Amino acid sequence: MTEQITLYTAKICPWAHRVELALQESKLDYSRFEIDLTNKPEWYAPKVNPASKVPAIAYGGPKVSPDAPVPESQKLAESYVLLEFIADLAPGLLPSDPVLRAKARFFIETATSKFTPGFAGSVLRGESPEPILTAIEAIQALLPAEGFAIGEWSIADAALTPFFARAEVALKHDAGAFDEGEGKKVYETLQSDPKYERFRKYFKALKERDSFKQTFDEEYIKSAYTKRSLETRAKKVSANA
Amino acid sequence: MTEQITLYTAKICPWAHRVELALQESKLDYSRFEIDLTNKPEWYAPKVNPASKVPAIAYGGPKVSPDAPVPESQKLAESYVLLEFIADLAPGLLPSDPVLRAKARFFIETATSKFTPGFAGSVLRGESPEPILTAIEAIQALLPAEGFAIGEWSIADAALTPFFARAEVALKHDAGAFDEGEGKKVYETLQSDPKYERFRKYFKALKERDSFKQTFDEEYIKSAYTKRSLETRAKKVSANA
Ligand SMILES: N[C@@H](CCC(=O)N[C@@H](CS)C(=O)NCC(=O)O)C(=O)O
Ligand SMILES: N[C@@H](CCC(=O)N[C@@H](CS)C(=O)NCC(=O)O)C(=O)O
Repeated sequence: MTEQITLYTAKICPWAHRVELALQESKLDYSRFEIDLTNKPEWYAPKVNPASKVPAIAYGGPKVSPDAPVPESQKLAESYVLLEFIADLAPGLLPSDPVLRAKARFFIETATSKFTPGFAGSVLRGESPEPILTAIEAIQALLPAEGFAIGEWSIADAALTPFFARAEVALKHDAGAFDEGEGKKVYETLQSDPKYERFRKYFKALKERDSFKQTFDEEYIKSAYTKRSLETRAKKVSANA
Repeated sequence: MTEQITLYTAKICPWAHRVELALQESKLDYSRFEIDLTNKPEWYAPKVNPASKVPAIAYGGPKVSPDAPVPESQKLAESYVLLEFIADLAPGLLPSDPVLRAKARFFIETATSKFTPGFAGSVLRGESPEPILTAIEAIQALLPAEGFAIGEWSIADAALTPFFARAEVALKHDAGAFDEGEGKKVYETLQSDPKYERFRKYFKALKERDSFKQTFDEEYIKSAYTKRSLETRAKKVSANA
């Protein structure tokens, strides 16, 4: 029998979103507790995650209210570790063949390290979003001709979807710290350039999954990113004035 | 039945050493092929690892000479991925309990990211080796009261041993890019300060394993590090002259 699972998460956070996707796909029962990252509950670091980050899972122990965690449950953190944990608990999130498992893990490690610097650099820190295109080309080269990262859907797809989805929102609505107009330009290239055909097909299939629809609040991300981009651009203007 | 395993490795490389430790512990049969990193064979990148790094594994396919790899074998790379791969092939390198597996993976992720910046910063780039002490304190805090990273020996220990062992050689023989005398000072603190008692006991147990004795060539590392540290210090002197 599987023990109780409480997920501490935040809608804004791509790392936490990885774990929500895997939990949805797993069909395991779990409680979801939203942590306000701008005002974290004081019990969170001492009782759940000393690193004070989301995602984290409390696993097992008695069924208690998520805001009153008890020492009897196991506290686990780090999104990648949690993806593997959920795959260990539930069949079907990672195949049993060792070579396919290695390919899934290689995809997670490589695609994450290719995509996240360009994403954070442009959306959060105001650099050009062009490196997102370079990263997508490199990730495409890792994909098989058809299907998901290793063919069937796996935690490899859960690991990247949150970043692709957030990048799309930022680019499409020009809502990032990058210069005005830069996001839309990259978005349009990504939509129309034949070079990105394989990625478009892959990303479409990712977004069609129920697990994605149930866990991604596009309006919420859009308005958070828009707010942040206005603030960052205002700072850039005053720094250049 | 397990397929053939060919490991492409280099004695100097801590990432490759991780995989040698796991293979030794696994008792799987494998062929070991040393790659000279200063003069890599031209077939290595196109036929084994496009990233042109060690470690890599060729798995399955016909038994061929390691220097003539064939397309029929699966080519796998990234040391962490290979650790999990070997644990998937051989029992006993990672327990079956999902919580213990999560703890092993958390240890690998956290301890690696705490230890490697201070190690590379001092031994390779000439910064102070003091951060190695801070990292060791943080890693100690992750260890259980007794035993290895998660109690029984696991791939979590294979992941860190190569870095601890190389840091010890560099510090003990003052053979790093750090300033002369700095290594020995940190080494002595590490040997005698009661603060590091738990780490000393852990590291001693790691070094006593057959897998370590069969895979670590201390004299080779010592002379490579000594050579490099003389070169780096000579450059520092001429830069300051
Ligand atoms: N390496 C971590 C990263 C998690 C992370 O950085 N989470 C952020 C939000 S996206 C966080 O909780 N930051 C702490 C804070 O905002 O106070 C993982 O993969 O889980
Ligand atoms: N992330 C890789 C790192 C491997 C790595 O950096 N290997 C180095 C040697 S320690 C290498 O082969 N570098 C290429 C070269 O020296 O040409 C892993 O974990 O396997």
